[in-house]
Amino acid sequence: MRGWMSDSRSYVKPIGIGEVMRSGVVGKVIESKNADFSVGTLVHGYVGWQEYFVSNGSNVQKIILPHPKLRLVDAIASLGSTGLTAYFGMTDIGKPKPGDTVVVSGAAGATGSIAGQIAKMLVGETGKVIGIAGSDDKCKWLIEELGYDVALNYKDPAFGNRLIEETPNFINVYYDNVGGSILDACLNQLATFGRIVLCGAISQYNSVTAAQAAQGVSDAPVAVGPANYMNLIKLRGTMQGFIVTDYKERFPEGFKTLAQWIVEGKLKSKETIIEGIDNAPTALEKLFEGVNTGKMLVKVADE
Amino acid sequence: MRGWMSDSRSYVKPIGIGEVMRSGVVGKVIESKNADFSVGTLVHGYVGWQEYFVSNGSNVQKIILPHPKLRLVDAIASLGSTGLTAYFGMTDIGKPKPGDTVVVSGAAGATGSIAGQIAKMLVGETGKVIGIAGSDDKCKWLIEELGYDVALNYKDPAFGNRLIEETPNFINVYYDNVGGSILDACLNQLATFGRIVLCGAISQYNSVTAAQAAQGVSDAPVAVGPANYMNLIKLRGTMQGFIVTDYKERFPEGFKTLAQWIVEGKLKSKETIIEGIDNAPTALEKLFEGVNTGKMLVKVADE
Repeated sequence: MRGWMSDSRSYVKPIGIGEVMRSGVVGKVIESKNADFSVGTLVHGYVGWQEYFVSNGSNVQKIILPHPKLRLVDAIASLGSTGLTAYFGMTDIGKPKPGDTVVVSGAAGATGSIAGQIAKMLVGETGKVIGIAGSDDKCKWLIEELGYDVALNYKDPAFGNRLIEETPNFINVYYDNVGGSILDACLNQLATFGRIVLCGAISQYNSVTAAQAAQGVSDAPVAVGPANYMNLIKLRGTMQGFIVTDYKERFPEGFKTLAQWIVEGKLKSKETIIEGIDNAPTALEKLFEGVNTGKMLVKVADE
Repeated sequence: MRGWMSDSRSYVKPIGIGEVMRSGVVGKVIESKNADFSVGTLVHGYVGWQEYFVSNGSNVQKIILPHPKLRLVDAIASLGSTGLTAYFGMTDIGKPKPGDTVVVSGAAGATGSIAGQIAKMLVGETGKVIGIAGSDDKCKWLIEELGYDVALNYKDPAFGNRLIEETPNFINVYYDNVGGSILDACLNQLATFGRIVLCGAISQYNSVTAAQAAQGVSDAPVAVGPANYMNLIKLRGTMQGFIVTDYKERFPEGFKTLAQWIVEGKLKSKETIIEGIDNAPTALEKLFEGVNTGKMLVKVADE
């Protein structure tokens, strides 16, 4: 969302000033003249920050939750773009093998929390999944509830040394949600033929390019690149970005697998819910403070 | 070679103080007690900066030049690790398709000059190959002799704007030999699903990490990372490093293809030759000043 508000080349056009903020939404049909969408039908769509909207049915899809253990909230979180992002990013780009060491940053966030659990299924008992998060409470949750092997608080002054200590076999897969100094620290510990999955870079979203700074566009900090990227040469690493919609044709596979894991209790999740559409901008800002554990959601109406 | 002199994790162990500097060498057998290597046999090996050496035959290979148009110098340049690096980096990682825009930095250097010619064969008439080099003479050579479509001198103050002008369809493949601000400029112009082949980073080899600088290890400049790497997320790009020996099993294929191109006149090369082993350290330093066009070689004896 933060990226969508910048006028730069991207996978979707930026949001214009005065336009409705783009957002994935789950909702319920409350009035209908369309036989395909009777009153009470649960729907999902990228219809933005709105309490109500009128649709001809082309921009929404019916939500089908194939098991009673699946909640409406899963449709926008673990089974929505968040879960699918973690699923395809980890299984198709990260591709950890049994015994591998996987590091996930933003590990207690919406995508990270799911990515780490998927990684643990893939690396097995002989592998190691390390989560990086911003509070001791989040780290506790990662280990006690989500099955991470290790969780490191990046605000701990010993973080850099702890990461080195915990990766004696180096890092086969780093799933990056944050960029900045944590990306650099993981590059420093990259294993030969290691892979970096570029999912996000929240530490950098509010920065500007050096060129923009020189033009006086903004007094925001200048974006920092990963100085240790040269390890990609020496260690033959790959750093690859992706967007979940690149996998649109495989969404049914991802949904089915994620749903099964949730039903079997293999995939757990948490949400941080803020109430009221007036608080949507605040909720977005709070992501940058790391206030949320799991998916940050804004509730605009009762179910 | 510069990297081999740093005590950091890499694909080969660093060279110790007082050890012979590692280097690919072509030479001739001048005395022999080994029937497999009669006097006059041409050999190649990683035997380092030496005028003479004694071998049991295990660390050298006979040079076979299957056509009279192939020169001894090709065995260490276009048909040696230089040519093979360009071949596998461009065909296996860059993989440009007909019509693509390919940018090569260090384009008049040993690897870059070959990588660009291979790219032009792959992108065809509808594609565009842009070389980046450090002098107008080099740029002239790229266009007039090597068939680059465009050559840009990065020392030209208009370089940044020229790169943007010349890449209206953005950059599908960037073959990077230099890193630093040129890597960032190319990331800024990356096409959707663009690929960056990390072959080298000569602008960064003499830098230190921020951690090393903080420890006062050296007063060398701190390494700079590509701040525009976030385009890899938005545009779903890949940045991948490699080392030519990863392709050891495919060397015969690479050698055969490169040799055929040379014989057919499709692949041209140039060498910058400095005489005398005492000048080997100077020759290495001069690479950092961009003195060479094509492969930089040190001649230690007559053929």
